[in-house]
Amino acid sequence: VMRAALGRLGIPCPRNLVVESPEEVGAFGLPCVLKTTRGGYDGKGVWFVTSQAEADEVFEQATSTGAQILAEELVDFRRELSALVARSPSGQVAAWPVVASEQRDGVCREVIAPAPDLDPDLAVEAQQIAMTIAGELGVVGVLAVELFETSDGRVLVNELAMRPHNTGHWTQDGSVTSQFENHLRAVLDLPLGSPDARVPWTVMVNILGTDARGELFDGYPHALARDPRLKVHLYGKAVRPGRKVGHVNAYGDDLEDCLERARHAAAWFAGELGDESE
Amino acid sequence: VMRAALGRLGIPCPRNLVVESPEEVGAFGLPCVLKTTRGGYDGKGVWFVTSQAEADEVFEQATSTGAQILAEELVDFRRELSALVARSPSGQVAAWPVVASEQRDGVCREVIAPAPDLDPDLAVEAQQIAMTIAGELGVVGVLAVELFETSDGRVLVNELAMRPHNTGHWTQDGSVTSQFENHLRAVLDLPLGSPDARVPWTVMVNILGTDARGELFDGYPHALARDPRLKVHLYGKAVRPGRKVGHVNAYGDDLEDCLERARHAAAWFAGELGDESE
Repeated sequence: VMRAALGRLGIPCPRNLVVESPEEVGAFGLPCVLKTTRGGYDGKGVWFVTSQAEADEVFEQATSTGAQILAEELVDFRRELSALVARSPSGQVAAWPVVASEQRDGVCREVIAPAPDLDPDLAVEAQQIAMTIAGELGVVGVLAVELFETSDGRVLVNELAMRPHNTGHWTQDGSVTSQFENHLRAVLDLPLGSPDARVPWTVMVNILGTDARGELFDGYPHALARDPRLKVHLYGKAVRPGRKVGHVNAYGDDLEDCLERARHAAAWFAGELGDESE
Repeated sequence: VMRAALGRLGIPCPRNLVVESPEEVGAFGLPCVLKTTRGGYDGKGVWFVTSQAEADEVFEQATSTGAQILAEELVDFRRELSALVARSPSGQVAAWPVVASEQRDGVCREVIAPAPDLDPDLAVEAQQIAMTIAGELGVVGVLAVELFETSDGRVLVNELAMRPHNTGHWTQDGSVTSQFENHLRAVLDLPLGSPDARVPWTVMVNILGTDARGELFDGYPHALARDPRLKVHLYGKAVRPGRKVGHVNAYGDDLEDCLERARHAAAWFAGELGDESE
């Protein structure tokens, strides 16, 4: 439904087709990506298939649950970007700086705001895509448009999320108005706040649950003592391996410094560092 | 009790004496300030007396309630400052930049962070006074030390507040770690966050209730549309004339701009502007 709507709006997307059988996957072209048309998130309901046998297997597995399957071209991309906007019912739109997000196993791991070395024209195009989608679909609140930056210098829409989004968590500490504040302002039809960055760089790294760290609270003393400028956001969720249970933001003038601080803190909270000597 | 404790610590204070009769006020010296030794706030329980007759009147009024009276010298001061610190049980102390606060009728109206043109040595002295008091009295959490900057270039302690304080509300948007976050960190004996300012200037202006504005929410559309960088903090209290019902923060590189933005917004929320042409 999302791909059909974007197609009608002329938004650049990966080539895609609803496929009814494994044979149609072969005709669409291999390798490709297969997705269930509903219910997917964090890499769930998404398969990379390189052979007809793999396509057969996905169909057997997915269609037994009644799911419909969408085939998409495998995009040759440099990295993933996210264009975050907030839109109010009266039509005002605020667009945050376009960020780079790093996904591993289908899960967002870290976000750099703004996306380093992004061509300014491409950044504007990504923001315009997000504003067009928000306007045409009548979005009220925050919309995150996840995009591929292709190796040949284009942007293609990967996914939409019509809500405050993981790729916007950096705004809590790095922008004048956070995605959460602007989401509420939009829902209340109040004027939106400035989405400008407050600092040259903000890095957000997710804290994923592991078996090594039972109580996230135990991570605080070292993390806060090591970095008095770190901002920690824990969600109060039970820790389960791979589950997003919090995130950290580190901001400043130097990107490498922010990356090091945020990655260290997230790994420490996750219990991945073993001991401080690592 | 507070004055006696500060005296023992050698902290510079206005000359003061507990007085038992109007005659002792005369002996202490007129004009002076009389205060009840308990229960005063926002100018309540404080009198400026210039004559024996006025001293008689205060005594008649105050001692009928059983209050004890403290006389203090009338300090010739240039302005009021506030030194805010957070202290953890393990003894770590974080000191925010010293701010200037403007009081009217005994009520804090606005705060400029940092205090403009403050002698750096005097700023350090104010911070050291606050750190000494916090350490010697074993404070856990936030302590605000309100000071007079005298016309002859000294600082004298006016009041103490052992809690997050009105003169620290600017930290919510203007410093790396807010007074509220560091108060919680201190109570939990976690390492304190950086109290550094994030921007050259932050101005906080209190919103005081008036008869002219029944519903504070009605102030949002204009205030937010006029200034997309404004940060508004309303307390959800019923509006009563003179009651602190919220505050606004404006931050940036230009002090005059921040003052104009914050004063306009607070006056607008209070209903003092009448219409936009003012």
